[in-house]
Amino acid sequence: ETSVTLYGILDGGIGYNKVDGTVVNRTTGVRTDYSAKKTGMINGVQSGNRWGLKGSEDLGNGLRAVFQLESGFDLGTGNSAQGGRLFGRQATLGLAGDSWGQLDVGRQTNIASKYLPGVADPFGAGFGQANIGTSFSAANTMRWDNLVMYQTPNFSGFQFGVGYSFNVSGNQGWDIDRPGLVNNPDEANGKGITTGLRYANGPIGVAATYDRIEFDADDAKFTQWNLGASYDFEVVKAMVAFGQTRDGWFQGTDFGPAVNAGGVADTSTGTFRSLDGLKVNSYLVGLTAPIGNGKLLASWQMADPSNSPDGALGEFEKQHTYSLGYTYALSKRTNVYAIGSYAKNVVFQDDLDSTLVGVGLRHQF
Amino acid sequence: ETSVTLYGILDGGIGYNKVDGTVVNRTTGVRTDYSAKKTGMINGVQSGNRWGLKGSEDLGNGLRAVFQLESGFDLGTGNSAQGGRLFGRQATLGLAGDSWGQLDVGRQTNIASKYLPGVADPFGAGFGQANIGTSFSAANTMRWDNLVMYQTPNFSGFQFGVGYSFNVSGNQGWDIDRPGLVNNPDEANGKGITTGLRYANGPIGVAATYDRIEFDADDAKFTQWNLGASYDFEVVKAMVAFGQTRDGWFQGTDFGPAVNAGGVADTSTGTFRSLDGLKVNSYLVGLTAPIGNGKLLASWQMADPSNSPDGALGEFEKQHTYSLGYTYALSKRTNVYAIGSYAKNVVFQDDLDSTLVGVGLRHQF
Amino acid sequence: ETSVTLYGILDGGIGYNKVDGTVVNRTTGVRTDYSAKKTGMINGVQSGNRWGLKGSEDLGNGLRAVFQLESGFDLGTGNSAQGGRLFGRQATLGLAGDSWGQLDVGRQTNIASKYLPGVADPFGAGFGQANIGTSFSAANTMRWDNLVMYQTPNFSGFQFGVGYSFNVSGNQGWDIDRPGLVNNPDEANGKGITTGLRYANGPIGVAATYDRIEFDADDAKFTQWNLGASYDFEVVKAMVAFGQTRDGWFQGTDFGPAVNAGGVADTSTGTFRSLDGLKVNSYLVGLTAPIGNGKLLASWQMADPSNSPDGALGEFEKQHTYSLGYTYALSKRTNVYAIGSYAKNVVFQDDLDSTLVGVGLRHQF
Repeated sequence: ETSVTLYGILDGGIGYNKVDGTVVNRTTGVRTDYSAKKTGMINGVQSGNRWGLKGSEDLGNGLRAVFQLESGFDLGTGNSAQGGRLFGRQATLGLAGDSWGQLDVGRQTNIASKYLPGVADPFGAGFGQANIGTSFSAANTMRWDNLVMYQTPNFSGFQFGVGYSFNVSGNQGWDIDRPGLVNNPDEANGKGITTGLRYANGPIGVAATYDRIEFDADDAKFTQWNLGASYDFEVVKAMVAFGQTRDGWFQGTDFGPAVNAGGVADTSTGTFRSLDGLKVNSYLVGLTAPIGNGKLLASWQMADPSNSPDGALGEFEKQHTYSLGYTYALSKRTNVYAIGSYAKNVVFQDDLDSTLVGVGLRHQF
Repeated sequence: ETSVTLYGILDGGIGYNKVDGTVVNRTTGVRTDYSAKKTGMINGVQSGNRWGLKGSEDLGNGLRAVFQLESGFDLGTGNSAQGGRLFGRQATLGLAGDSWGQLDVGRQTNIASKYLPGVADPFGAGFGQANIGTSFSAANTMRWDNLVMYQTPNFSGFQFGVGYSFNVSGNQGWDIDRPGLVNNPDEANGKGITTGLRYANGPIGVAATYDRIEFDADDAKFTQWNLGASYDFEVVKAMVAFGQTRDGWFQGTDFGPAVNAGGVADTSTGTFRSLDGLKVNSYLVGLTAPIGNGKLLASWQMADPSNSPDGALGEFEKQHTYSLGYTYALSKRTNVYAIGSYAKNVVFQDDLDSTLVGVGLRHQF
Repeated sequence: ETSVTLYGILDGGIGYNKVDGTVVNRTTGVRTDYSAKKTGMINGVQSGNRWGLKGSEDLGNGLRAVFQLESGFDLGTGNSAQGGRLFGRQATLGLAGDSWGQLDVGRQTNIASKYLPGVADPFGAGFGQANIGTSFSAANTMRWDNLVMYQTPNFSGFQFGVGYSFNVSGNQGWDIDRPGLVNNPDEANGKGITTGLRYANGPIGVAATYDRIEFDADDAKFTQWNLGASYDFEVVKAMVAFGQTRDGWFQGTDFGPAVNAGGVADTSTGTFRSLDGLKVNSYLVGLTAPIGNGKLLASWQMADPSNSPDGALGEFEKQHTYSLGYTYALSKRTNVYAIGSYAKNVVFQDDLDSTLVGVGLRHQF
């Protein structure tokens, strides 16, 4: 009586993380020696752990009702991921038409996270710091709340999408007017625009995306545009990407535990973070190469801060990430993987490195 | 090997909310200008977003084991609703017999929420402030924890139900006796009784309900009884309801963000709230009218405070709610809707109005 | 397209709890009269309420990918159990081979909880304080996070298992090295080892287990080994167990609400709690006896503290637990139960008793 599909991915293994060097407090300029390491169970490295429900109902005349509810969790502890959200990975309802596309409301990833990694990331937006999102923060599997999203159908390989979020993270705050009001909740709403285009035809893949988040408080506004392209030579598939970020950071990467408890977390790039004056150019060159039942994955990424945020102290250096991975299919739904990734000058700190080594098992149901 | 059914409802759209006027602080009597508005994604307006599991096992001799687990969430953010409960909408296990009825234990709605809206609410307990619960708080989809509920079978259209909750909200506190104890947890248990009768036969529907919650602390006790009736003239179905509330409020309605942070939320009627001395008479007149694949919904409601709570300052005015809605079926499981509702003197404030306008899509699976 | 199984257990009823006597503050030595009681809805008494997803994929050559996600909740309120975890009962992914056994990563119960109650607990690790875990804390359905677990196949009735947890409760903390660091998160990791053996053949069952948890902070380390055996005489199945605990307590039992808010909870044995100097010998004698569609369950347990924790004030007395239960099958998947259990000197307090009486319904799907 119901057309719902129950699905999921489980991913767990063993790994080693190390973040090492010195950290500069961007407010005081003081340098501190820093080392953090961990050997243990890893999970969600290739793909975040999830279970979900999705469905589609044919309404006639090429029209369909579509929905997807996807719940993320930590396999090590069983806790919900995405800040404790029940359906933190996706919660959408929409109408889809063969001729005009699909319109969804709810929480889901932005266009850059949908279109760019599929074209330009050998690691398919997975594998921790190896994923393209480490340098291209708007493509870092960023999810927005309260999002209205429209995407065209695929026209001869072309697809276009555009979305607007009334508040990218959390319930939309009211616009309040009353005497003595200190902070208007509406000014804390992160209003997001996401748009982009992708093209996939034969060996060629191309993606172009643009994202902007605006907070009325402090007139904060930050943007990112990205370009990606790939060509499949069959023995190897080559990928390149370039992007520019201005005045903030979208979906951040946490390289290690925070240095300054309750203060600036100088080992994280931060999420939905306005950083006036920051300019970053991002680059990626990567490849995948099929080898029997396996696939080799490799990329070099760089995030180059050509201008530092206003008032931030210390040097802002180029962050490089070198990654090598291997996946081997045990079946269509199950594979093992190995990953090694080294990043230097992480969070643009001139003497801070991050290393990730791991092996794991991934199963899709 | 299992007879469980996986089901759900998704509901999302776009809407506008405004709460506007002045607010009186009931403790100090001070008036404040107040305006709050929001245009954005709405969700769960016609029906709260949910997924659930339910099942029934035939044990022979007309006996069945029955269960239902229902999880509510916010489609905008993916967060759990009902205060973060996993199965916040319902969590019950019971035995059902063809001849004697059904006995359940667990969390579920009270009898007024089960029996009254089905008879007397054109909006079927949905559509935000348009729903009957805005004026009849015991029928406001109120859910009680730790509830033991008995309902008879349907006898020629008659059904009777009665339930007792050991604590309506949260874990039942112990009754502690020891030297120096300041607050006995048992006195904070909200002990609830819910009972009622419904009759449905041909064009006629009738419901009568009674609810009481008692807290030993401060000898707080509040009650509500309600009557509802409907007659289906086929071109139109007419509905009326009347109820009386004494000394408190059951399931509250939040009309806008709280005015006094950390203090009295004068834009909400409050939930499980003892208000000694309060007397409210509630009225509803409504109708539904089928129009092709669509249905028109309309109601006027009033909550008339004939006596104000002891010590509360400022006027207590009649709260009126005027609502008009329309639903259109795209299929048996999917519909679109439009809703407009205007309420004045909300929370009995003499100069505070609330407006809701929205359109949405609802899908059941 | 998917091989996943959706399953669950629901368990609810009515019961009475009482904890009565005096409580000694172990820090100050001060005695306080204490009584706490509760009559109300009970749930999860025979079996914790749960729903879950599990699956297995055949990878060929006797190899399988296996997973299990199990979510615990409170039927009275609908809240998640296990500290709010989404899949708090189990979250594992593994590979299983017919010839070599199974290797899992994720959260699950330790070996003592898997092997001992099946052999030596008439109450099958259920029924509240009647369960074997009240005296044998490592077998008290203890779950560890970040666990890597290996178990052999069943060889003629023999099975061996061993597991290591990088942190038994919560995310694994980093090992941090930097100037001015006060508490290194790595030292708060509870590193756990669990191992054991079981044998089941015809009427004979035997289990032997060993558990250890170590915290680098304060050089805390506590251990427990347990032995259990059973023989099925058909009219009755007899069970015995013996165990020794040193320097701490594994999975605790809460007998009543805490006496000293924010301080030592002297009505709970505490979980993952280092208690240097504590020595406890644990004993159990029990039986089950089939009676038609029903089964009688009975046990006597004792936890005898031969040495008290360093610095703890007051007497440490033998904790005795006497339990009697009855289950009656309404079908293969549904049963009713009754339980009575009386414990004296609970938490080793010389004048503190705990009584549990309840009846309930349990349904498996």
